[in-house]
Amino acid sequence: MSRSPGRKQENHKISRELFVLTYGALVAQLCKDYEKDEDVNACLDRMGYSIGIRLIDDFLARSAVKKCRSYSETADMIAQVAFKMYLGITPSVSCSSATGNEFSLILDKNPLVDFVEELPAERASLCYCNLLCGVIRGALEMV
Amino acid sequence: MSRSPGRKQENHKISRELFVLTYGALVAQLCKDYEKDEDVNACLDRMGYSIGIRLIDDFLARSAVKKCRSYSETADMIAQVAFKMYLGITPSVSCSSATGNEFSLILDKNPLVDFVEELPAERASLCYCNLLCGVIRGALEMV
Repeated sequence: MSRSPGRKQENHKISRELFVLTYGALVAQLCKDYEKDEDVNACLDRMGYSIGIRLIDDFLARSAVKKCRSYSETADMIAQVAFKMYLGITPSVSCSSATGNEFSLILDKNPLVDFVEELPAERASLCYCNLLCGVIRGALEMV
Repeated sequence: MSRSPGRKQENHKISRELFVLTYGALVAQLCKDYEKDEDVNACLDRMGYSIGIRLIDDFLARSAVKKCRSYSETADMIAQVAFKMYLGITPSVSCSSATGNEFSLILDKNPLVDFVEELPAERASLCYCNLLCGVIRGALEMV
């Protein structure tokens, strides 16, 4: 933590394309491994979870954010700080439930699908970006 | 190609950690799928190849480099421009063969293994970063 945040930030930037294509290779491999979309989705979520519980340390160290005091503050933090930091985008937060314990992150522009054409019809239930859900789940569980 | 290179570059940067952890998940999945290290290595190479043949367009568009006229110029281009652009590092090029048709890229600092401890003994022949070899192979084949 003694390194200056600016410099560290700079060193930790890479080009998005390699990530997007590697992620595509991962999803394609899982589609080979599992026949059912549900199993692919579950596997992506599990992988994301493992990533999230490790990524949260990096996030806390580099963002230097304070503790969130409400659920909506948490949602904003994920959208505005975490997504920005890791994917370079800021999804909009939509909270539709009356009780305020549910929110959606709407990705107007999703870099993960940059090179993806349409999903084949037999993969209609595939949640291509399910890894991200797992990452958020894993990261939140640790804080 | 009408976008200014500077702006495009900026928009296309993401944090390295998410990529490194996602790559780790990919390798772990392949280790589950294939018993033999050789098969994992071959699969990583194949995946890298598919990535390379797509990534080369992105590289040519964003780097605006001229055609290389020699083998050693190609090696330098990969090390100094491509690695820098996609992984934020610059490997050193070592050409040991007398005929000059062989070179090695030495990664003094390999970001891909940032979160990797030691490989388990039963995976001694695993080329963890073999995807990169495939990427280079695929990209070069297209130019």
